[in-house]
Amino acid sequence: MAEATTRRRSRSGGGAARRAERTTLKIETAKYIERNIPLFEILNEEALEIIEANAELILEEVGVNFVNNPGALERWRNAGADVEGERVRIPRGLARELCKTAPSRITQHARNPERTVEIGGNTLVCAPVYGPPFVRDLDGGRRYATMDDFQKFVKLGYMSKWLHHSGGTVCEPTDVAVNKRHLDMLLAHMTLSDKPFMGSVTEPSRAQDSVEMCEILFGKEFVQENTVMTSLININSPMTFDDVMMGALEVYAANNQACIVSPFIVGGAMAPVSVAGTLTQVLAEVLAGIAYSQLIRPGAPVIFGAFVTSIDMNSGAPTFGTPEASQILYGAGQLARRLGLPFRSGGGLCGSKLPDAQAAYETAHTHNAALLGGVNFMLHSCGWLEGGLVSSFEKFVMDADQLGVLHQMARGVSHDENAQALDAIREVGPGGHYLGCAHTQANFKEAFWRSELLDYKPFETWEDEGARDTQALASLRVEKLLAGYQKPAMDPGVEEALNAYVAEKKASMPDSFI
Amino acid sequence: MAEATTRRRSRSGGGAARRAERTTLKIETAKYIERNIPLFEILNEEALEIIEANAELILEEVGVNFVNNPGALERWRNAGADVEGERVRIPRGLARELCKTAPSRITQHARNPERTVEIGGNTLVCAPVYGPPFVRDLDGGRRYATMDDFQKFVKLGYMSKWLHHSGGTVCEPTDVAVNKRHLDMLLAHMTLSDKPFMGSVTEPSRAQDSVEMCEILFGKEFVQENTVMTSLININSPMTFDDVMMGALEVYAANNQACIVSPFIVGGAMAPVSVAGTLTQVLAEVLAGIAYSQLIRPGAPVIFGAFVTSIDMNSGAPTFGTPEASQILYGAGQLARRLGLPFRSGGGLCGSKLPDAQAAYETAHTHNAALLGGVNFMLHSCGWLEGGLVSSFEKFVMDADQLGVLHQMARGVSHDENAQALDAIREVGPGGHYLGCAHTQANFKEAFWRSELLDYKPFETWEDEGARDTQALASLRVEKLLAGYQKPAMDPGVEEALNAYVAEKKASMPDSFI
Repeated sequence: MAEATTRRRSRSGGGAARRAERTTLKIETAKYIERNIPLFEILNEEALEIIEANAELILEEVGVNFVNNPGALERWRNAGADVEGERVRIPRGLARELCKTAPSRITQHARNPERTVEIGGNTLVCAPVYGPPFVRDLDGGRRYATMDDFQKFVKLGYMSKWLHHSGGTVCEPTDVAVNKRHLDMLLAHMTLSDKPFMGSVTEPSRAQDSVEMCEILFGKEFVQENTVMTSLININSPMTFDDVMMGALEVYAANNQACIVSPFIVGGAMAPVSVAGTLTQVLAEVLAGIAYSQLIRPGAPVIFGAFVTSIDMNSGAPTFGTPEASQILYGAGQLARRLGLPFRSGGGLCGSKLPDAQAAYETAHTHNAALLGGVNFMLHSCGWLEGGLVSSFEKFVMDADQLGVLHQMARGVSHDENAQALDAIREVGPGGHYLGCAHTQANFKEAFWRSELLDYKPFETWEDEGARDTQALASLRVEKLLAGYQKPAMDPGVEEALNAYVAEKKASMPDSFI
Repeated sequence: MAEATTRRRSRSGGGAARRAERTTLKIETAKYIERNIPLFEILNEEALEIIEANAELILEEVGVNFVNNPGALERWRNAGADVEGERVRIPRGLARELCKTAPSRITQHARNPERTVEIGGNTLVCAPVYGPPFVRDLDGGRRYATMDDFQKFVKLGYMSKWLHHSGGTVCEPTDVAVNKRHLDMLLAHMTLSDKPFMGSVTEPSRAQDSVEMCEILFGKEFVQENTVMTSLININSPMTFDDVMMGALEVYAANNQACIVSPFIVGGAMAPVSVAGTLTQVLAEVLAGIAYSQLIRPGAPVIFGAFVTSIDMNSGAPTFGTPEASQILYGAGQLARRLGLPFRSGGGLCGSKLPDAQAAYETAHTHNAALLGGVNFMLHSCGWLEGGLVSSFEKFVMDADQLGVLHQMARGVSHDENAQALDAIREVGPGGHYLGCAHTQANFKEAFWRSELLDYKPFETWEDEGARDTQALASLRVEKLLAGYQKPAMDPGVEEALNAYVAEKKASMPDSFI
C-alpha cells in the first residue's frame, strides 16, 4: 500500500490536500476482528465426510448449469468435465482439486492503509447491509431508497467504529438509472469513506467499470497486483450459474479481485428442508463456482459464501435468525475451513418490519453464530431490516454498536498474572468491595465493552429524558453522526479524475431503468 | 413419581377430580432441553488449572465468612477448616473433597409427572424471572407488583410451551405482608400450575413452610426421598455467607431439597474487573457453599450457580448481556463440569427499561451463551427487564417464545439418510424448486422452528393490521393466553389442605412489612 500512497501524494494538488488532511476529524475504526477464542463446530467428522462425499456425488451425477455462457462450457470441457447442453457434470475430485489454487487469506486494500482488511484465518471483517430497494427511518417511515440515502449510509459506515468495510449496494438508489447507478455508488464509497468496498455485479460491463474506477483510485499496476474490491457473486440455487453473475466473476477473477461465491438459498424452496441436505447442496455449488473462478485465473481470490435462510412453511415467507439458519452457518463454516477458504455468512439478518425486539433477537442470533462459526466476511452486519427489503437508518447504528460486542467477545479470556487478580482478591477480602481497589483502578477502562447507544441510566433519569426506546435513541445517534460527518481527506486530482470518469460514462449512454 | 400419583389418586375426592381432568385443556410443554450439540469452551486447560489452583489458594489463605452462624463454624471446625472468629479458612483440597458427595444430576419432581425435570448432564431446564418488585405492561406501565400480577405470571408460565419450570418469586407481591407472601406464592405455583417450582429462602422458617407445603402436595415420605423444590441460595460476594441464606440452605439440604448455590456478582464491584479473577472468586465461593451443603447432608442436591453481570464503570450501573458476562458464563460452565455438578447461569438478562431492541439483543446474547455454555438450570429465562427490577408481561411471552429457538438449536444436525436428502437433490436438479418435492412434503412440518409470536407477514398485511411491533404483538398474546387459561386438574382434598395450611399460618402471626 505504501506504493499507492506515494503515488497519490505525488499527484496531489499540494497545499489543499495537506490542509484537508490536517483539519479532518480522525475517525477511530477497529481494523477487523481477530478471534482469540475457539470456534463452535456442530458437525462431527462422520457428518462432514458424508456431506463432502455427497456433494461430489451430486456434482458428478446431477451436475450444475452454466446458463448462456458458451465460454464457461468450453473452459469446463477443457478442464475435464462432462458437458451436455448447459449441464456441467464434474468428475469426483476435480472441483476440489481446482479449488486448491485459491488463496486461504485475502488482503483487501483500502485507500487509507489503516483500513485495509485481512479476510481469512482467524479474522472477521464486518460489512453493512447490501441490496434493499427501500429505506426506513423513524421520521420518514418506509420509502424507496435514493442516492441521498445511499450517501448517508456510506457516511454512517465511515463513522462506525466497529464496522470495517463500506460495503456495496447499501441500498438501491432507485432515483438513478439502473445502468448508471453503480457509478454513483462506487464514487460515494471511494470519496465519502476511506474503508474498503465492493464492486458492481449487475452486468459484466459494470464490473469492468468498477475495475477502471479502482485503477484511478489506486493506480493501474496496484490493482493488478492487489485486491481492492470484494464483490458478491450469488449462485441461483439450486445449482445454476447465470451469465450475468458469472460474467462479473470472470471480470473480477481476471483482474485479481475478490469474489464471494455464494449460494443464495431460502431453505425448503431452493434447497432441501434438512440442514444436512442444504449443506450438501451449498458445498456442491460453492465447489463448482470456486473451481470456475480458478479456471479463469488460478490464484484468483475467492470466498466460500453461504447465505441461507429458512422459510415459514405456512406462509412461504423467508425467516431469519432461526436455529436452522445458525446450524447451517456452523456447518458451512466447517466445510469452508476444510477447503482452506475464507468464509462468508451471517449478518444482522431479521424478518421484522421495524427495528424492534424481533429484529434484535434475530440479529443477535445471527451475529453470535457468525462470530462462533468462524465467518471471515460478514455482509449485512448492520442495517438490514424486513428480510432484506429495507435498509434501516436506526438499525444501522444499532447493529454497528452491537459489533463491538463481537470484538470484545473475540478477545478471549486472558489468564496472565494481571487477569488472575489474586492480589485484588487478597486486598478486598470477604465482605469488601472492589470499586476502589488498586487492580480495579488499573484495569477498569479496558475491562468492559461499553455501548455508545444503549441505555444504562437510572430509571428516573431515563423517564425524565422521555422514556426513549432503542429506536428513538438510535434515531438521535443517526442525526448526531451525520451532523458531525467530515469527508476523509483525498487527493483532489484523484477525486477530479473519478468524477470525470463517472460523468463521461454517464454521458455515453441513455438512462435505462430496467 | 408413580407412587405420588397413586397416592394423590387414592386421596382424591373421586368424581370431581376425574371430571376436572377430562375437561381440562391439555397444555403442551416441552419436558426440558437435551443438548445433542457440543459445548463452547472458552478456557484452555492451562487457564482452567490456574483458576482452580488460585481458588483453592484463596480458600486456604483468605477464607470465607459465615456470618451469625455458630453452627456453621462448628461444622467447619469439625470438618478440618481453620476457624477464626467468623472467618473460615479451608485447607487446599478439603472443599473439593466435600463436594464429591453432591449428585451430578437432579430429578426435580413436579406434581404432574409429565412436567418432572432433569437438571444436569446434557439438559437445560428453563425457569422464569425471579425477584422483581415491579411489573410492567404496555397498558399499565411500570408499577409495584401485586399478588394478582404474580398469579398471572404463574398462569403464563404454565401455558408457555418452551418453559419447563414455574420458578419462584416471579415478581414480589408487594401487597401481601413480607412474612406471609411466601405462602401465597407457593400456593399459586402449586395450584395454578403443575410445573416444578422453587421454595422460599427469605427466612429459614419460610424454607420450613415450603417443605411442609410440599409434604401436603407430594406426601411426607415422597418429599424426604425425592427432590420437589429447587431454591436459590445467593452468596453475598465477595465470600460472605449470611445466616438467612445459609439457614434456608440448611433446611433444604437436610430435607433433600435442591439448592442453587450462587455467587451474585456485579463484576468490578463484588469481584475483580477481570474475567479470570472473577471466575477464581466464583469457584472459591461455590466450592465453600457446596461443601457446606454436604456437611449438612452428604448427597444433598445442589447446583453450581454463577450470576455475574458487568458494570458500566462510568455510572456504576450493572449491565447485562455483555461479552464479559458471556465469557464468565462459558468459563464457569467449564469449572462446574470439571466438578461434576449441575450448572446454573444465564437467563433473559437485560438492562433495558422496555421490551425493545436493547432488551432483545442482550437477552439473545445471554440465551445463546446459556445454551452453548452448558447451563443446566436457567433462571430468569423469560420476563426479566430493567436489570431485574421489573417483571414484564410482554417480555415474558417474547422470551418464552425464544426458548423454542434454543430447543431447536439443541436438537443438533442429523445426518441420517433422510436428512442427507440426496434423492430430493436428484429429483429437483439445477433450476428447479423444492417446495413440492416428496422429501419436502414428508419433512416440512418438523423441519423448522416456528415462532408463535413473531411477525412473518407480507408488509401490506402487517401494515393493514396496524404495523405492530413485537411489544404490541406480545401484549395481545398475553391477553389471549390469560383469557384461555384453565387451572390444571388437582385433587380437591390436597387443594383444601394447602389452603387450610396457608390460612392457619397466616392467622398465627401479625403482618410484617419488613
